[in-house]
Amino acid sequence: MNFASDNTAGAHPAILRALAEASEGRAMPYGNDPWTERVAASLAEIFETAVTVFPVATGTACNALALSALTPPWGAVMCHESAHIEVDECGAPEFFTGGAKLMTLPGGDGRIAPATLEQALAGAGFGVVHSVQPSALSLTQATECGTVYRPDAIRALADLAHARGMGVHMDGARFANAVVSLGASPAELTWRSGVDVLSLGATKNGAMAAEAVVFFDQGRADRFAFRRKRAGHLFSKMRFLSAQLEAYLADGLWLANAGHANAMAARLAAGLAALPGVGLLHPVEANAVFATMPGHAIEAMKAAGFRFYRWPHDGSDAVRLVTAFDTQPADVDAFLAKLQSILLIPAPAAAT
Amino acid sequence: MNFASDNTAGAHPAILRALAEASEGRAMPYGNDPWTERVAASLAEIFETAVTVFPVATGTACNALALSALTPPWGAVMCHESAHIEVDECGAPEFFTGGAKLMTLPGGDGRIAPATLEQALAGAGFGVVHSVQPSALSLTQATECGTVYRPDAIRALADLAHARGMGVHMDGARFANAVVSLGASPAELTWRSGVDVLSLGATKNGAMAAEAVVFFDQGRADRFAFRRKRAGHLFSKMRFLSAQLEAYLADGLWLANAGHANAMAARLAAGLAALPGVGLLHPVEANAVFATMPGHAIEAMKAAGFRFYRWPHDGSDAVRLVTAFDTQPADVDAFLAKLQSILLIPAPAAAT
Amino acid sequence: MNFASDNTAGAHPAILRALAEASEGRAMPYGNDPWTERVAASLAEIFETAVTVFPVATGTACNALALSALTPPWGAVMCHESAHIEVDECGAPEFFTGGAKLMTLPGGDGRIAPATLEQALAGAGFGVVHSVQPSALSLTQATECGTVYRPDAIRALADLAHARGMGVHMDGARFANAVVSLGASPAELTWRSGVDVLSLGATKNGAMAAEAVVFFDQGRADRFAFRRKRAGHLFSKMRFLSAQLEAYLADGLWLANAGHANAMAARLAAGLAALPGVGLLHPVEANAVFATMPGHAIEAMKAAGFRFYRWPHDGSDAVRLVTAFDTQPADVDAFLAKLQSILLIPAPAAAT
Amino acid sequence: MNFASDNTAGAHPAILRALAEASEGRAMPYGNDPWTERVAASLAEIFETAVTVFPVATGTACNALALSALTPPWGAVMCHESAHIEVDECGAPEFFTGGAKLMTLPGGDGRIAPATLEQALAGAGFGVVHSVQPSALSLTQATECGTVYRPDAIRALADLAHARGMGVHMDGARFANAVVSLGASPAELTWRSGVDVLSLGATKNGAMAAEAVVFFDQGRADRFAFRRKRAGHLFSKMRFLSAQLEAYLADGLWLANAGHANAMAARLAAGLAALPGVGLLHPVEANAVFATMPGHAIEAMKAAGFRFYRWPHDGSDAVRLVTAFDTQPADVDAFLAKLQSILLIPAPAAAT
Repeated sequence: MNFASDNTAGAHPAILRALAEASEGRAMPYGNDPWTERVAASLAEIFETAVTVFPVATGTACNALALSALTPPWGAVMCHESAHIEVDECGAPEFFTGGAKLMTLPGGDGRIAPATLEQALAGAGFGVVHSVQPSALSLTQATECGTVYRPDAIRALADLAHARGMGVHMDGARFANAVVSLGASPAELTWRSGVDVLSLGATKNGAMAAEAVVFFDQGRADRFAFRRKRAGHLFSKMRFLSAQLEAYLADGLWLANAGHANAMAARLAAGLAALPGVGLLHPVEANAVFATMPGHAIEAMKAAGFRFYRWPHDGSDAVRLVTAFDTQPADVDAFLAKLQSILLIPAPAAAT
Repeated sequence: MNFASDNTAGAHPAILRALAEASEGRAMPYGNDPWTERVAASLAEIFETAVTVFPVATGTACNALALSALTPPWGAVMCHESAHIEVDECGAPEFFTGGAKLMTLPGGDGRIAPATLEQALAGAGFGVVHSVQPSALSLTQATECGTVYRPDAIRALADLAHARGMGVHMDGARFANAVVSLGASPAELTWRSGVDVLSLGATKNGAMAAEAVVFFDQGRADRFAFRRKRAGHLFSKMRFLSAQLEAYLADGLWLANAGHANAMAARLAAGLAALPGVGLLHPVEANAVFATMPGHAIEAMKAAGFRFYRWPHDGSDAVRLVTAFDTQPADVDAFLAKLQSILLIPAPAAAT
Repeated sequence: MNFASDNTAGAHPAILRALAEASEGRAMPYGNDPWTERVAASLAEIFETAVTVFPVATGTACNALALSALTPPWGAVMCHESAHIEVDECGAPEFFTGGAKLMTLPGGDGRIAPATLEQALAGAGFGVVHSVQPSALSLTQATECGTVYRPDAIRALADLAHARGMGVHMDGARFANAVVSLGASPAELTWRSGVDVLSLGATKNGAMAAEAVVFFDQGRADRFAFRRKRAGHLFSKMRFLSAQLEAYLADGLWLANAGHANAMAARLAAGLAALPGVGLLHPVEANAVFATMPGHAIEAMKAAGFRFYRWPHDGSDAVRLVTAFDTQPADVDAFLAKLQSILLIPAPAAAT
Repeated sequence: MNFASDNTAGAHPAILRALAEASEGRAMPYGNDPWTERVAASLAEIFETAVTVFPVATGTACNALALSALTPPWGAVMCHESAHIEVDECGAPEFFTGGAKLMTLPGGDGRIAPATLEQALAGAGFGVVHSVQPSALSLTQATECGTVYRPDAIRALADLAHARGMGVHMDGARFANAVVSLGASPAELTWRSGVDVLSLGATKNGAMAAEAVVFFDQGRADRFAFRRKRAGHLFSKMRFLSAQLEAYLADGLWLANAGHANAMAARLAAGLAALPGVGLLHPVEANAVFATMPGHAIEAMKAAGFRFYRWPHDGSDAVRLVTAFDTQPADVDAFLAKLQSILLIPAPAAAT
């Protein structure tokens, strides 16, 4: 059973069906097709405002392209120190922006506090020619710690950024999980709270490979098509990206999938909390659970065939467990049962 | 009926089936999966040598990434003036290489003649600090004019490039069409003739969105994984790229599809050649036909619902017609019949 | 005697004196000094308009930085095929612009004809996502062939560019030579004819190492300070760049120097034209002379200690001879006398 | 009196004389001149080993170019969090490297401790495709805190870096100050302790605008000439850069200048330490003094015409005072006397 990441899941059957249907007949390439048009209309409805939408295939492309529309090469992107753009994209934001700098901020549970941002901005050297110029704020929703930002927090952070002339980006690789978790509307979590551009993820939540750069600030979208093309991210058979997104958004599939994954994480967290020697590192607000547990138990769980990543935390043994749209309650329960049985056995004495 | 491009076709049913099958169950991400392993093995067998393979989703990414492994930022890539990398990628090679220059060469029927390359190299300023340094030769196979390079021509060009320390890239967006057309082995058309890295296309020939960077020169592949990742072209659910490629290469599907497309182009060319006032611009050796015809006929064909691009040539009215794996003989015959009927009607007098 | 280039000359004594004087006492760094302020004022007066001025030390930096303010990474810069930015800067414009493309245009005597530009623009694919977007026109004044653009020609070219939303750059590495040659005002040759930004050269005409990016379009200058800094071209002891420029512009030194160099070129051209077997390749309108002459004579002149570059032209033997502010009439006469004596001797028979 | 920075000083008379002498007659451009040759010979002698030398004009260019030879675009440069390359170059390293990341390390007195580096390397994700790959270590000598690294510390850090395949860069904008301070040989402070490439500063220590990239690892120097050229940092009249460096290194001028500046800093530090309410933040080992003092005293000193920068430290009021080759003992004494007199007056009560 695989809790390593939500990207180890396959695609949802509805999305596979949509691909098969989209394959019928000829369609004009590069987005001049009805699927792409329908996705844009669907997102405008879901977000209750005009949007400009650019489907791409990977989260890294989605983020790096979006950021490149917000910052010049001499700019800086402020983000949490655990942000995917800082930690897991091998410098993609630097590549796409022509060498802008990422300025990382600390913050509990994967969230940036407004006061932290305010202090960083105060010392950032705006207008000083020797300093890179903060040009964008990037927030991750849900965060890398499996927590979420409430709309008022987003608004407070976005206001600080906008007051400095910066743009606000949201890395929404797990945006659906946040929407479900908060019970807030997509609009409330984005443009109504000051987000200018959203990386809307679908891959981790049931698509094969599909994300969308969604611009709420239409001025920022200008010339974006050239950025996407020249990065090799404009698909000729675009209908196959758009068909995934269309199915993803249709009939609430995206929210149903996320809701299920969140529920599985909650079930897992509840079970873990009840085990002796196991602790939760962060509130479980989306589909990831971070837990401390004895090192020997981690090894024993791996030996038993469970897949997940070690996630050391302040010198303690810990793990990250991620649930997905296809995680079964039985998977969760099997994990918990096995771990419980392991924890009942005393830890082996250290070698002498 | 659509002759605009082979990228207006959908995906081949076998490839759709492979995707559905690949979606079953969990798989580790980023290429650590059995599909990706099998594709590499399959390509090693097809090319009769060790290869390093990097699946990506678009032809532009495939080309630009491959070139970035061959040239430093102060380098130059020599290519035909009609090459896709020069004309149709919005500067992607420049982006991925950090600003290398494309040096274009003329040549009949979309092919570079060895003498032309030799002359360009002689004047290229190797070692002169003021000059960009030619570092790669890029050949398109089949060419943008629907013709092919014979192995001896590839060898002659590659020898000239290698003698200058340059790497040799082949843009094989339509490589399968060339293989079928020439009846040569994939090995003969690539590494045995001096090609160091191949952009192997599948999208135009039946895949949804799948290409592969294939390195024959293993030294060139070093660190390539970082280039792909940081360009946003490493898929998390890589199995879906690899499954397409696996099905594409299995049971000769790639060659069957290309053979069919080539046959449809030949049928179209034969029919066109028999029509009065219609001329072929290039030998038809793959799946594209370039033809001159009266301007009024072009307009009438478009009005009749046929889709294709105008392709002006030296001041003459001309069109490009591209066939694909799913082009039907009846489509070709309908095009020819309609054009014949139009040509029988005298051209309208110019407005006075 | 050295006719290889005007950059083989030293610095003018007045400029050396200005440097020694500028060295007295302390001054605030990075351009916050009186010299830099005075240069800006001086250029505003000379160009009869508001300007924003950025001193730098090399012509390549001056051009590449200026162009980077005019074009996005997916843009193209149109220029003559002999332009320094295309031929002699090792890809600096590509580096500074983040990978924009240079589109070269042919043209007699180093000049682009308006009709040539018009045709190129017509086929340039504005708005097409697959095509780089022409964003700047770069004109060289005086040209690489030692000729000049008249104000009406600049205006015609600039109008075409502006009609397409492009910016107009002038590479004025030898701008002073053009001003003197044409007897036109600096304003007339630049902003009054549509130039948005000028690379104003001083190094080749008497400075040690000093150029200035001069913006007439103030909007284009915005954020330029960050570009200069991050390229390593912001001098801490800026007063030493500005002092050179101040002395260069004071009391008409720049025009006097250029006038002298032009006169020496004219003297050389007149002498060459009178020699049998010698032909001039281009009108001599500035400080460079391009002449065909027998290959054996070229070798004999080199053997006699004269320094200059061979400059093959359409298969003929030819040379480039450049004069400078310190070229002496006696140098010119010695060159002519020696060449005359060599030409009187029959060419050696070719080896058999 | 100016303690703002050593870059507010002019040029040393010997360097101005060298420039005037170098200006005599013609010289071939781009470094093909005797001055450049002599500088290289001089540095080989001073460093007691073969070196490859590239003169440039600014410290930012020197650092960014040197780093670009050590790291690929997907690499990372590890440096102290106060390093000039991180704080004061507006992203130049990112620009020149094509988007590599700077990873900053904390450390007392501006120095990285080997244990800190070791820990950072252990967690750096070498070989992980999602992580930028640490490729260079950059040490600042003397540091931004006016301290120095002893040879054994350099060796310990360099060994850690080399063990990971990283290159070692030294930002020696104030290298001469460190040499004098430590009484160690230039060789001992660089290649004998593991430094692969040195940014050797001269500008802050008596030159007008001259630095040199000095490669000890000859393999790293390969193709560097193209990097310098395409960044616009290859001077046509190179003799004027090289003449500065030649005079700087001749007869120990560089060490004499640095020795004087260091002595002035020591005099200043000794005086400050004796004043009530003034504290030194770092050991004074080169030519910079960092001192805490009451905020009202800072204001009063500025009002009295002394120039220096506020340098807040952990919430305390503090200043940075930099001495130079031309700082006079009387300047130092005047500063101390004025400050003493100010400190005798009670601080004004805060407004109520």
